[in-house]
Amino acid sequence: MRARCVLFVCAFWSLSIIAYGQTERPIHDMGLISTSSSPNARLHDVPIRAVSLGDGFWLPRLQANQQHSIPELYQLLEQHGVIDNFRRLSGRKKVDRRGYLFTDSDLFKWMEAAALSLQSNRDDKVRALLDQAVEEVLAAQGEDGYLNTYHVAADGIQRFSNFSDNHELYCLGHLIQAGIAYFRGAGERKLLDAAIRYADYVLSLFGPDKRQCFPGHPEIEMALVELYRSTGEKKYLDFVGYLYSGIDLERLEEKVSKRHLQYTFSGIPFTERKELRSHAVRAMYACCGAADYYMETGDQDYWQTLQTLWRDMTQYKIYVTGGVGSRYSGEAFGLPYELPNERAYTETCAAIGAMMWNWRMLQATGDAKYADWFERGLYNGFLAGVSFSGTQYFYRNPLTSYGDTQRQPWYNCTCCPPNVERTLASIPGYMYSTSDEGIWVHLYHTSTLKWRIENGVPLTLKQETAYPWRGQVLLTVAPAKSCEFTVLLHIPEWAPGAVIWTPDGAMHDDAQPGTYYKIRRRWRKGDQIRMILDMPVRLIYANPRVREDFSSVAVMRGPIVYCLESIDHPGYSIFDLIKGPETMQTFTLQSETLLYNAVVLESEASLYQPGLETAPLYEYNRIHTPIKKVPVTFIPYYSWANRGRSQMQVWMPEKCE
Amino acid sequence: MRARCVLFVCAFWSLSIIAYGQTERPIHDMGLISTSSSPNARLHDVPIRAVSLGDGFWLPRLQANQQHSIPELYQLLEQHGVIDNFRRLSGRKKVDRRGYLFTDSDLFKWMEAAALSLQSNRDDKVRALLDQAVEEVLAAQGEDGYLNTYHVAADGIQRFSNFSDNHELYCLGHLIQAGIAYFRGAGERKLLDAAIRYADYVLSLFGPDKRQCFPGHPEIEMALVELYRSTGEKKYLDFVGYLYSGIDLERLEEKVSKRHLQYTFSGIPFTERKELRSHAVRAMYACCGAADYYMETGDQDYWQTLQTLWRDMTQYKIYVTGGVGSRYSGEAFGLPYELPNERAYTETCAAIGAMMWNWRMLQATGDAKYADWFERGLYNGFLAGVSFSGTQYFYRNPLTSYGDTQRQPWYNCTCCPPNVERTLASIPGYMYSTSDEGIWVHLYHTSTLKWRIENGVPLTLKQETAYPWRGQVLLTVAPAKSCEFTVLLHIPEWAPGAVIWTPDGAMHDDAQPGTYYKIRRRWRKGDQIRMILDMPVRLIYANPRVREDFSSVAVMRGPIVYCLESIDHPGYSIFDLIKGPETMQTFTLQSETLLYNAVVLESEASLYQPGLETAPLYEYNRIHTPIKKVPVTFIPYYSWANRGRSQMQVWMPEKCE
Repeated sequence: MRARCVLFVCAFWSLSIIAYGQTERPIHDMGLISTSSSPNARLHDVPIRAVSLGDGFWLPRLQANQQHSIPELYQLLEQHGVIDNFRRLSGRKKVDRRGYLFTDSDLFKWMEAAALSLQSNRDDKVRALLDQAVEEVLAAQGEDGYLNTYHVAADGIQRFSNFSDNHELYCLGHLIQAGIAYFRGAGERKLLDAAIRYADYVLSLFGPDKRQCFPGHPEIEMALVELYRSTGEKKYLDFVGYLYSGIDLERLEEKVSKRHLQYTFSGIPFTERKELRSHAVRAMYACCGAADYYMETGDQDYWQTLQTLWRDMTQYKIYVTGGVGSRYSGEAFGLPYELPNERAYTETCAAIGAMMWNWRMLQATGDAKYADWFERGLYNGFLAGVSFSGTQYFYRNPLTSYGDTQRQPWYNCTCCPPNVERTLASIPGYMYSTSDEGIWVHLYHTSTLKWRIENGVPLTLKQETAYPWRGQVLLTVAPAKSCEFTVLLHIPEWAPGAVIWTPDGAMHDDAQPGTYYKIRRRWRKGDQIRMILDMPVRLIYANPRVREDFSSVAVMRGPIVYCLESIDHPGYSIFDLIKGPETMQTFTLQSETLLYNAVVLESEASLYQPGLETAPLYEYNRIHTPIKKVPVTFIPYYSWANRGRSQMQVWMPEKCE
Repeated sequence: MRARCVLFVCAFWSLSIIAYGQTERPIHDMGLISTSSSPNARLHDVPIRAVSLGDGFWLPRLQANQQHSIPELYQLLEQHGVIDNFRRLSGRKKVDRRGYLFTDSDLFKWMEAAALSLQSNRDDKVRALLDQAVEEVLAAQGEDGYLNTYHVAADGIQRFSNFSDNHELYCLGHLIQAGIAYFRGAGERKLLDAAIRYADYVLSLFGPDKRQCFPGHPEIEMALVELYRSTGEKKYLDFVGYLYSGIDLERLEEKVSKRHLQYTFSGIPFTERKELRSHAVRAMYACCGAADYYMETGDQDYWQTLQTLWRDMTQYKIYVTGGVGSRYSGEAFGLPYELPNERAYTETCAAIGAMMWNWRMLQATGDAKYADWFERGLYNGFLAGVSFSGTQYFYRNPLTSYGDTQRQPWYNCTCCPPNVERTLASIPGYMYSTSDEGIWVHLYHTSTLKWRIENGVPLTLKQETAYPWRGQVLLTVAPAKSCEFTVLLHIPEWAPGAVIWTPDGAMHDDAQPGTYYKIRRRWRKGDQIRMILDMPVRLIYANPRVREDFSSVAVMRGPIVYCLESIDHPGYSIFDLIKGPETMQTFTLQSETLLYNAVVLESEASLYQPGLETAPLYEYNRIHTPIKKVPVTFIPYYSWANRGRSQMQVWMPEKCE
């Protein structure tokens, strides 16, 4: 039923690509995750294409993403043999296979990024590259549907012989997501059909009463739930239930330890998980899929586990930047409060995984705490992963750097770059949701939403703001006909003292930080809401259990976490700076053109002089090096390492006396 | 020449095992390292057998070592196939090879421990086990001298085919050390001769103008220098020079990256090293061998490098316990100030390596700074590695524990247990040195030294003390005939205000901490020195650059670093304790029978209540949880985890306000 509907609508909008303002219910699967029919989703996504960004923080990022990041990464994938691997498989090219065993997923993620970007802007060049990639991938698919360039019998590598390590289902998951995105972004079904053929092949071989499998690296779970949403085929959802229910090790054809299953966050019943102790990206992707599964099934055990794990993350294991996965060893979550700064691993993909998980938890509940951590990750832990140019990426995102790392255009394990690109391309889709109550505003940016409320009335919503640099937001609400619904405005947790003026002119100062402020009324075209989110500079303190941040402060303004970079502090080491009792009391705001007009913060700190490197490692008395006041400049954390090699620090130690 | 002399003296003392008080120059090679003829050693070792420990701190440890640790580890080596591996090689037993490729070294280290222990006490049981092990090893040696149970052509593993990873020369190094110790401790040359045959085989194959080799794991360097000292054969010293001069990668038969050479601390010219960034044990062993090499050659480039690396360690990379190698990943040294507490790796072997290096630097110079770090490691970072029973070992020695680790009797990679055993057995040999100035006292413990000063006059030196619990030391000096020399007393760096009474009754309060206090006079039999090392409880502060110790204190008294254990603090978490401005001002000393009469310290600290786990991870205001005063008990760090599973913490955060 559903599948036919999708097909029909697709044919429809491929003629009329911008389907704004239709009076009939929009095709259900055009948001980032299509929860409009999910029985346990309170909120429903708005398609990327329904949102046009205006000038502001994100527009140049999304433009660079489509104009530079995506085309250049395609060339790099080509240069490093990732696309040739498919040509080899299809027989079009006689070459050796190159790269890690999971390189297929890098191309699939790139395809998803390219397809998502087309929803915002039809770029012929990107479309041509994407079509070309799709064509190469399709040509490599086997008769039986199997499609993976690493597992080639002629190379002596058997299909489905090593679920522990070989990322086979992980690659399939990304193929499904690419297929869905290509369908939604380019209007063509062929890649989705290929993904379905492969998925059906897998389902024909594995399952509760068939051969046993497990993902090894979660990813396919959320892809299959979305495939269920896209096709209406419940078998995909059921297979996700099978994957999450844990495997019968006795019946598995390969040897795998329980410890490895713990680490890979798969193969053990999801509902038995009590804490995040594993590879971080795997954990985040598993939680994404489980949240998706919960939204479809309403299984309360899943919901309890999701809440337990989310609390574990946010109470003990997340950086102030929204990054996760602190431990180098195994790219893993550490113990509670194990949040080293220089040794932070915090893979960009893990920050993205945490955002995707928060997004799903938000869709399920409408609880602002998920939007808060989503926003924190978006502007900080995630965004630090990419340069202003859009073509250089961090794999790791430490909170202290001795200047020994710079972003790279390519990694041999290049999971992060296409993940960054698909996330940037997704941003318009993260700004709004609908529910039966009305329209939810999660993120602030000058933009126009052309969509509808859930009673079917078309709605245009204009935002004007200089967020995240200024807290003023003007919203102009324009339903096609006057009707009653609620506008729910995200009041971030960092924003006490928000003031809101409703169209009737009334001023409201009762908005609580970390909530959605609800304005219910009969809206008429042109009704305006004005909001001021107060944005003082704030000092943040970590729980004293976080030993590396003990007696230290981080600086935030609005959603932005700040840092010090050595390039702004010549002549001494930023690691000799300390917050004295009388420094960092006041901050001056400056717009910095070198940092794309970011607001930087000028203040004063205390400096150990001579520097601490001359002091002994241990002393029997507290070190009483003379201290002098010096001016300091805080820049947004996401913007560091854009002006050459520099040392960097987020947490500033605070002097006791 | 030298070799013959050794042989002669050996024959002599195997009849008369305690060779105290001979008027002729004692055999030069009976100390731990035999530097008596080393042109660049200012100090010269005293043999283990010249020192009899009386009651006190170390005696029960050494007794447990010989009576329990050594016999029980032998059984474990037997159970885990380590000795069978030799029987397999000699054809005496048809079994599969078991264990890691370097298990031979575990047995050799055990043999060294057993042989060293025989110098203090002739234990028939240990001697029988040792003779049995020697016999099995000798039977396995090849005609050509080769002796390694892993590299067996019939198993398809070629000799000398993988210096990068296979620890072949490392195992040979431990064989040489075992051979020397067996010779010195049991009076038999056969194991030493076997080691020499193997060493000569290696020297026949490799060298500057022959095939290229490198150790992969340093160890053979210090063994070969000692072999040179024991035999007088300069070829062994020259080969060490070859190993330290770096290999010609072009001529090496295997592929190895420069990065791997960096990490293994071998294959690159030693004198090009500027910092300790590598596997920690490898680095320490390389520095030991280089210090030995310097003492024989006087090569100033080596000395400069040794000083540079020692400064790197003690200025940036050593724990307050004397442990080193902070980083899990690669069991390695971290960056400067990278000294995490819970995630401290600090392998027991690395602490031992640092002690052995400090010992050699002390022998070269007589500079008390080396004795200070030696003592710090001995009583803390090293000693924590073994239980009171002597039969359970830590591989890692973190400074914070959540209670998830306990000492184990065995590790599959069981390098630490025999290393602990040989170090315990060595302790009498670390107490004194001689030089042409007189006699040096490095460590304090009730004991009798029967040895001679370097002019040949026999000397008896009695120490009476309850060190390290009390600072009073009574020394009775008894040369066989009255003569002039200097007694040099180590004044530890933690001991300001030491007071010394010389035999003439004069009181001296000018002894500087971190020096040797020199008393030069004509000594007569029965002359006494009284010394009081003041032992207040002291709070230690780390350089603020050490972020995990920022605004925190460690507690020391004398050479002992203290910690908190949760077993002494029921009802709350020790991680909720904090030093308030008015707590930890005074300490009461108690002798704790459960901890073998260790002095424990009672004081008061402040407690967050409710505990910090209920507080958020980040707050916009400093956390102002109510605090109350509670009694706390500090126990010696080395003694933790001896009363069951417990949480532990060395560094106590200090509250600002």
